[in-house]
Amino acid sequence: MPFGEACGVVGIYSHKQVSYDIFTALRVLQHRGQESAGISVFNDGIHTYKDMGLVTDVFKPKTLEKMRGNIGIGHVRYSTEGASVQKNAQPIEISTTIGQLALGHNGELVNANELREKYKEKGWAFFSNTDSEIIIRVLAKELHEGRDPVSAIKNTMYEISGSYSLVLLINNRLFGIRDPLGIKPLAIGKKSGKYIIASESVVFDALDVDMVRDVSPGEIVEIGENGINSYRVPTPEHTAHCFFEWVYFARSDSVMDGVLAYDVRKKIGNILSREHPVEADLVVPVPDSGRSYAIGYCEASGIKYGEGLIKNRYVERTFIMPEQVMREYNVSVKLNPVKSMVEGKRIVLVDDSIVRGTTMGKIVSILRKAGAKQVHVRIGCPMIIAPCYLGIDMKTRGQLIASNKSVEGIRETIGADSLGYLSIDGLIEAMGKDRKDLCLGCITGEYPVKIRGEKMRGQESLDRYLV
Amino acid sequence: MPFGEACGVVGIYSHKQVSYDIFTALRVLQHRGQESAGISVFNDGIHTYKDMGLVTDVFKPKTLEKMRGNIGIGHVRYSTEGASVQKNAQPIEISTTIGQLALGHNGELVNANELREKYKEKGWAFFSNTDSEIIIRVLAKELHEGRDPVSAIKNTMYEISGSYSLVLLINNRLFGIRDPLGIKPLAIGKKSGKYIIASESVVFDALDVDMVRDVSPGEIVEIGENGINSYRVPTPEHTAHCFFEWVYFARSDSVMDGVLAYDVRKKIGNILSREHPVEADLVVPVPDSGRSYAIGYCEASGIKYGEGLIKNRYVERTFIMPEQVMREYNVSVKLNPVKSMVEGKRIVLVDDSIVRGTTMGKIVSILRKAGAKQVHVRIGCPMIIAPCYLGIDMKTRGQLIASNKSVEGIRETIGADSLGYLSIDGLIEAMGKDRKDLCLGCITGEYPVKIRGEKMRGQESLDRYLV
Amino acid sequence: MPFGEACGVVGIYSHKQVSYDIFTALRVLQHRGQESAGISVFNDGIHTYKDMGLVTDVFKPKTLEKMRGNIGIGHVRYSTEGASVQKNAQPIEISTTIGQLALGHNGELVNANELREKYKEKGWAFFSNTDSEIIIRVLAKELHEGRDPVSAIKNTMYEISGSYSLVLLINNRLFGIRDPLGIKPLAIGKKSGKYIIASESVVFDALDVDMVRDVSPGEIVEIGENGINSYRVPTPEHTAHCFFEWVYFARSDSVMDGVLAYDVRKKIGNILSREHPVEADLVVPVPDSGRSYAIGYCEASGIKYGEGLIKNRYVERTFIMPEQVMREYNVSVKLNPVKSMVEGKRIVLVDDSIVRGTTMGKIVSILRKAGAKQVHVRIGCPMIIAPCYLGIDMKTRGQLIASNKSVEGIRETIGADSLGYLSIDGLIEAMGKDRKDLCLGCITGEYPVKIRGEKMRGQESLDRYLV
Amino acid sequence: MPFGEACGVVGIYSHKQVSYDIFTALRVLQHRGQESAGISVFNDGIHTYKDMGLVTDVFKPKTLEKMRGNIGIGHVRYSTEGASVQKNAQPIEISTTIGQLALGHNGELVNANELREKYKEKGWAFFSNTDSEIIIRVLAKELHEGRDPVSAIKNTMYEISGSYSLVLLINNRLFGIRDPLGIKPLAIGKKSGKYIIASESVVFDALDVDMVRDVSPGEIVEIGENGINSYRVPTPEHTAHCFFEWVYFARSDSVMDGVLAYDVRKKIGNILSREHPVEADLVVPVPDSGRSYAIGYCEASGIKYGEGLIKNRYVERTFIMPEQVMREYNVSVKLNPVKSMVEGKRIVLVDDSIVRGTTMGKIVSILRKAGAKQVHVRIGCPMIIAPCYLGIDMKTRGQLIASNKSVEGIRETIGADSLGYLSIDGLIEAMGKDRKDLCLGCITGEYPVKIRGEKMRGQESLDRYLV
Repeated sequence: MPFGEACGVVGIYSHKQVSYDIFTALRVLQHRGQESAGISVFNDGIHTYKDMGLVTDVFKPKTLEKMRGNIGIGHVRYSTEGASVQKNAQPIEISTTIGQLALGHNGELVNANELREKYKEKGWAFFSNTDSEIIIRVLAKELHEGRDPVSAIKNTMYEISGSYSLVLLINNRLFGIRDPLGIKPLAIGKKSGKYIIASESVVFDALDVDMVRDVSPGEIVEIGENGINSYRVPTPEHTAHCFFEWVYFARSDSVMDGVLAYDVRKKIGNILSREHPVEADLVVPVPDSGRSYAIGYCEASGIKYGEGLIKNRYVERTFIMPEQVMREYNVSVKLNPVKSMVEGKRIVLVDDSIVRGTTMGKIVSILRKAGAKQVHVRIGCPMIIAPCYLGIDMKTRGQLIASNKSVEGIRETIGADSLGYLSIDGLIEAMGKDRKDLCLGCITGEYPVKIRGEKMRGQESLDRYLV
Repeated sequence: MPFGEACGVVGIYSHKQVSYDIFTALRVLQHRGQESAGISVFNDGIHTYKDMGLVTDVFKPKTLEKMRGNIGIGHVRYSTEGASVQKNAQPIEISTTIGQLALGHNGELVNANELREKYKEKGWAFFSNTDSEIIIRVLAKELHEGRDPVSAIKNTMYEISGSYSLVLLINNRLFGIRDPLGIKPLAIGKKSGKYIIASESVVFDALDVDMVRDVSPGEIVEIGENGINSYRVPTPEHTAHCFFEWVYFARSDSVMDGVLAYDVRKKIGNILSREHPVEADLVVPVPDSGRSYAIGYCEASGIKYGEGLIKNRYVERTFIMPEQVMREYNVSVKLNPVKSMVEGKRIVLVDDSIVRGTTMGKIVSILRKAGAKQVHVRIGCPMIIAPCYLGIDMKTRGQLIASNKSVEGIRETIGADSLGYLSIDGLIEAMGKDRKDLCLGCITGEYPVKIRGEKMRGQESLDRYLV
Repeated sequence: MPFGEACGVVGIYSHKQVSYDIFTALRVLQHRGQESAGISVFNDGIHTYKDMGLVTDVFKPKTLEKMRGNIGIGHVRYSTEGASVQKNAQPIEISTTIGQLALGHNGELVNANELREKYKEKGWAFFSNTDSEIIIRVLAKELHEGRDPVSAIKNTMYEISGSYSLVLLINNRLFGIRDPLGIKPLAIGKKSGKYIIASESVVFDALDVDMVRDVSPGEIVEIGENGINSYRVPTPEHTAHCFFEWVYFARSDSVMDGVLAYDVRKKIGNILSREHPVEADLVVPVPDSGRSYAIGYCEASGIKYGEGLIKNRYVERTFIMPEQVMREYNVSVKLNPVKSMVEGKRIVLVDDSIVRGTTMGKIVSILRKAGAKQVHVRIGCPMIIAPCYLGIDMKTRGQLIASNKSVEGIRETIGADSLGYLSIDGLIEAMGKDRKDLCLGCITGEYPVKIRGEKMRGQESLDRYLV
Repeated sequence: MPFGEACGVVGIYSHKQVSYDIFTALRVLQHRGQESAGISVFNDGIHTYKDMGLVTDVFKPKTLEKMRGNIGIGHVRYSTEGASVQKNAQPIEISTTIGQLALGHNGELVNANELREKYKEKGWAFFSNTDSEIIIRVLAKELHEGRDPVSAIKNTMYEISGSYSLVLLINNRLFGIRDPLGIKPLAIGKKSGKYIIASESVVFDALDVDMVRDVSPGEIVEIGENGINSYRVPTPEHTAHCFFEWVYFARSDSVMDGVLAYDVRKKIGNILSREHPVEADLVVPVPDSGRSYAIGYCEASGIKYGEGLIKNRYVERTFIMPEQVMREYNVSVKLNPVKSMVEGKRIVLVDDSIVRGTTMGKIVSILRKAGAKQVHVRIGCPMIIAPCYLGIDMKTRGQLIASNKSVEGIRETIGADSLGYLSIDGLIEAMGKDRKDLCLGCITGEYPVKIRGEKMRGQESLDRYLV
């Protein structure tokens, strides 16, 4: 996944040991992060186990068995390039006057550095570079000063700005928290005394509980013996859901804020066909990422659908070969064209995004070499022209082909006959949401929160809540 | 893969070290077998390295680097339940008066036991239970008796009966051999002095060589400095290509005996729609196996295509959990329905096969639970009613639901509203081949070779060639 | 090692990359702790890498290579039973207003809980249960308040009480610190611009530098470009070196505070023979721990030395077998008597200590079964009757056979013909140090620092320095 | 171990599952070979599991548990440099007309090539390069020709020449076999219905059974329900026990052919002191190999014993570092002198052997650097001047410093003040055996069996039995 991934969080309260359910939830959320996995449970104190690696590498039956307790949280983290990032694994756990806390965080603070400096000035020593440490320590301070959990959480939310979906243990109490703009997803599921808070609704499907609803932007939810208790901080007039969750991060069978990812993707395909029609013989998806878009494109255009590129699933496993050797191997080890299908055809090639353009360039050339007469590329996402500061791993404009080149320039780079990106209006139409309720930072350059050196979207002043 | 898998073989002659190319070829053939992988190269003697595990687990850059030599063979083996099957890994290598031999085999002999007994009677001690050992030792005997390689291979082919696609090193000479009925696939590729023999044409795509042609049934091909030399044993009037390669084993982008697997699968979808039409709202494939069939079904029926089931790719990794715990987890961890898409719909659910019926039963119930109004199952393969003795891991009638139950019985078992299997005629039509040129043993109970206790298809007597 | 182990620390300043030297030093100190290993280097910021496992498991050439920097510290930690103790691995690293700190600690604070509570009350959240976190954070507070490193370290030393030998990075400055009583060892080595601070002098031998001297009790040493700079806190009239280092923890070739461990051990053997003479035919050491003592016993008694027990080195590797199976295997897998040597003999069996008595009981019975006529056990250490609070993992009197039983009771338990422990006076004689300069807490019950519920040795009041 | 190692074999018959006992036996024999480990048990057919690695790496509790059966054999193999030697792991298992065979072999045939060629000429194809394959196949031929097991084994023994201690399963019958010269050790143990055949008596100690006796040279022993049955082939007048077992391979607590290794080693020390007396202050063993010899040297010379070199046990683990880095580390990481002990002293340094001389040279220089005034090296084994063809991995005269240099030349190479090797007569005296009953090939150049290009010791003609 070229953009890195989001993290995934889950919190469960049940009448029996929750470690197995949290484990299953994390496996289902594995697509949101493969760097590290961790679980904290409360059982006469909070016990945390976490390590680098996939969920099934980190947790063995014995480990899960020993993690007794009916309440707990879990986290999967996306991979970065950092060498030893073991200390960044979550949940993060601390011990204070009021007991123990454990936190799992999906999102990114925009005022992390300011807060870190502010508290360093007060004499705090920091153990990591993570936003999570800031959040849990500000919260600990609030609790230490005598506030009840909900007030402490609220005060913390007033201090931090950015995107955050949190699962939180304060001793044996479990909270789910979503930032006032609802940037990252978070939802609640329930069945016969078992309550679950999770990043994506697919967790509920896997654990066979019913989705209750999304956690609202700015909402603090406590789940436990007494069911669901809800509190909230003041929120601005509009939300700022990250549209990228629907077009990229989330599994297509996830329903977030009432909208199924698959539906958005297929509808984008429809709109793409309307915005960038072309006479062609075959619509071919880049597997697996372009499939839903391609299906939508076919539906609307009436052009035939064909799985003209085959993915070698086993090649996805990492394998490092001496460079001089690898240079001689072409990309076809990973993607192979179905020659008889593409030969002599005018192809519409559909994918969800273009980052640097190199991969797409290779795919276009693979198709040409297999005999495609024309290759028309259609991208199910508007041009990414600006960095994301709210949780997506695309930080500099230099990395983004679309922030440096025109559509025509990119078309030339990838060697396509034509290139069409989804329009921003098309995206909004596909989402079925009000433009003002979405974070479109990376495609407009206007952000829903104040970011030094960047434009804030104009509609309202949220200073109070967003720093 | 419920039916086990075929093995994959490759042999390469080149002007430079072939170990890297063989390694890449094996990765591309990995879908044909994940139990073990091995490579033999000739360089002042034959050197073989093989072990249990995936190709990338067995071969590290250092190992490949040390395997010098311009000529070699490789093999991937399918997984069985046997405990320590290390000794069954291939290529198998032996040392004789005339030098060294190494062999990789895809297929299954029907007279293996007879031959093993016959040669045990002559005092031979066997080191494994594999057909490959029989083949290589009969061949070694022929060579030892003074025959030239081609005569020795021919005599060996006269002794053995069954399916076999072989890659063979006799010291520094490389042969590819296909049984007289052409049951298992084998093809030749070439580019600027590099020659490749491989189970599937996708190897040529990955290594960027051109496919020359299939190895003919009964053909012995030698590749080397002098290009391609061809010899042949007498063959019967008809071939007996295993149709399962096109509908199940091979990658859909492989062309075997002139026919692209994808085309067959899509065409089967067309025919299924004609043979088992139904009024429905949505065609849903079982991912990833049913996709090509479903696309074909849509094309012909005009019913909309929808990816209504989502696969959790990370869950494919094996993980063993205490049974009592796992029993509580439902299948949805692996396959999840897209509720909004299937809710209230009449679904045509398409897959390539039904073995025991349990998995299909669960998928049907997942769809129903997600709100599907009707579920009509369509299977892109005729009913499997008889065992395979020629290379597919389905040995007893008891394992096969279709050999014990009627269509109606199976429909009831899986809980579908209707169930339609492809007809045998439909299969033949989709293949575009003469019925007599196919092995249809598992769907007709009539086999192209003599098998004790089974019927042989009547068209001709092949005793001479097939024992 | 029945008593757990001490930790090992090292700090190096050099003209070239220090990671390899630190790695070698940690391997040489591996006997002081096998649970985890870690290295911090300064190179435009402090970089720390640490993990569970042996030094050679944690650090691979690639990791070491990437750890650039001419100054750094390292740590090996002893193993406890705690489940996930990853977060306790050292060095511990933090980030503050004045930059970064990294710390490696050998020892144990006696006022850790008090300090932790005190600072929790001030609102601090703790990330671990370690003394090291307390030390580094108190130090960070001092630095944050504007003190220079040496003053900050001094103030920290005034707050903490207990045993501590520390290696410390304050950004690119490297300090070695030893508690005012000199409880745990720490020494300085040097050669042509390379300076090393390490727990044991064997590190200097391995890195081929010359030992300069011990770090003095209460001394703060800075090493770097300007050589060795020394500062000190006020110290009491007497030191309190842990005698256990010489009789148990340190390698016998280590010189600590001017005394070679081997010499002490051999001399103890001499004294044991004088204090507990016995008519016997053979002195047999428990390998490898009793060897130096046994050699000394022979020297003084004139009785013959014999390696009558053989250790199976390969069995030292951990291997977990189902309990019901293991119960059937006797200890002889690990230790085997040389029958012909012990048969019919009166044996003096020598070891360094008895903890619970079970192992010694088994060894006695192995010897008897092999035909020994008498088995006289001699122990090179006085009876351990009280817990250690200063760094040795023996916390409760219940664990210690000598705190619950008389010598005669223990003799009966282990089934020996006679049992002789070294006297405290004998120990002091062997050490060649003033009794007042040793910590004899575990053998006298009187401690050199204030410990709640325990007696403090009377000689002086150290309140000022020891809290 | 510079000379490579011998292999270890074990066979057990019991009233319950033997896999755990075989596993324990192999761990105890681990010093005889660390390359591979394997077990074969009979339980309705022979089942073999083997792999590269230490015993505890190859066998996990689950594997052992599944290996049901009351009768079985095991093998550990010494490490060679060969790349993929997986196929050489033992036991070797074959299937024949008369059923299954499995064999474990310790030793080396001198007519392996002749036999391999002879049988290749008869048309046999060989699967490995091992002597074991020759033995098991000749045996299989004999059995196939209708002979009963004992006759077949005898005929096989008449064909093969060299050293061999064998454990053998012929279906459910277990045999132990020792070559007519008794070159390699093999012994029988027993307790209440459990019978064990093993390379060294330490196995009996570990499994708590009583040693019954050695297997006699030329004896075939069958153990099972009916106890011990013994058969024999004609043997020459003298045995040819490999003296190296006592001075090098075997554990010092092993009794072989009535003689305890420790006794031989200590006695050698006595004799060395008599043969090469020197005025000195301290006898220092190279740990752990020189210890028994050094103790003996002290006893006879009256010079004091001192453990003046300390071994870093953790450094024994293999760890590969970039060469340029390692070159800078001195050997002291592995061996460290106890300076205060050796300083100013005249040292007698004792070890069991010198191979190339490089290691000994480094040790001498370590001692000198630590201040030793003189270093007198004493070696507990005569000069190795000729290759071994009977099981020890020293094949060419070029590898052996003593076959190329005089004592004085070697002394100069290692930089010692004096150098004394044990004399051959001294060795024989220490062994307490008749010279004619020992194989002294490597120290005399005269072998007990015919070897092309080498002298055979003259005492008798054994053509009949030794080919």
